[in-house]
Amino acid sequence: MGKTILVDMDGVLADIYTQLMSWEYKKSGKTFSEEDLYGKAEDVIFTSLKEHLNSLGFFRTAPLVKDSVEGLNYLNEKYKVLIVSSATEFDNCLNDKRNWLTEYFPFISWKQMIFCGNKEHIKGDIMIDDHFKNLSVFDGRRILFTQPHNMFIHDETLERVFNWKEVIEKF
Amino acid sequence: MGKTILVDMDGVLADIYTQLMSWEYKKSGKTFSEEDLYGKAEDVIFTSLKEHLNSLGFFRTAPLVKDSVEGLNYLNEKYKVLIVSSATEFDNCLNDKRNWLTEYFPFISWKQMIFCGNKEHIKGDIMIDDHFKNLSVFDGRRILFTQPHNMFIHDETLERVFNWKEVIEKF
Repeated sequence: MGKTILVDMDGVLADIYTQLMSWEYKKSGKTFSEEDLYGKAEDVIFTSLKEHLNSLGFFRTAPLVKDSVEGLNYLNEKYKVLIVSSATEFDNCLNDKRNWLTEYFPFISWKQMIFCGNKEHIKGDIMIDDHFKNLSVFDGRRILFTQPHNMFIHDETLERVFNWKEVIEKF
Repeated sequence: MGKTILVDMDGVLADIYTQLMSWEYKKSGKTFSEEDLYGKAEDVIFTSLKEHLNSLGFFRTAPLVKDSVEGLNYLNEKYKVLIVSSATEFDNCLNDKRNWLTEYFPFISWKQMIFCGNKEHIKGDIMIDDHFKNLSVFDGRRILFTQPHNMFIHDETLERVFNWKEVIEKF
């Protein structure tokens, strides 16, 4: 139980791209190709991004990232896991995020949850995150979880994983 | 802007005792004397504590601790302030806490908010908190904000303040 792993929520546990594509399609009928997504920031791709992220239910109904339940359960048995999620920017997402976590990851207790605005204030040894901005201010081992927006980031100080099976292989 | 101060919410910014006494009176007609409160844990005093803390609106309608707006504004101009609140235990309080902070402390941005289960994972130089359990796992300067439950704690490694005027005098 030595090391503490900080695990991101959106893009690592919650499949926010699938949710955004679904909500954008419901709103405007728009569909997206890989070329539309790769290497681009979410607010460039999804024109109603802020509206979706501020909507009650958006995070509560997000689908799971494949194998995230098994993967997180595995980490949780070997390490001290904290879920660290950027969440204070949006009006309605905090309860949704907490209750989504509680439903899908019942082995994660409320004591392991941190909802914040800026992750640089959180202590840990290892960080798994899809956002370079979070990893770049972290002084431990840094694991980049692949999502379309970070597809073209090349940084030799980061370890990249493409899915939860690769996370498990590392630990 | 050197040092980071972690400021607790309940019992330091939000007057949770007044809110609990008011909600308990509305529910059962019970009133409280100083002797009922001093030196006792909140769950011993307030028989419906968990029900209140889980209720939508409980934290959203809490009154302010006297001089907390002026005091926090003063600290916020001289230091890096983070609001660190234990909040993930309860079903409905996260949005309420965020929106209460945003209303009464508009100079505190969402980037300065942390809602967690366990404060020992948060980095900082100074902590202002009414709960000994939070201060006891903090390795920086530790300031105990007086509330009825902590009235009889004597610990020479803590600095005790009785109100926000005394906080300001220290900084």
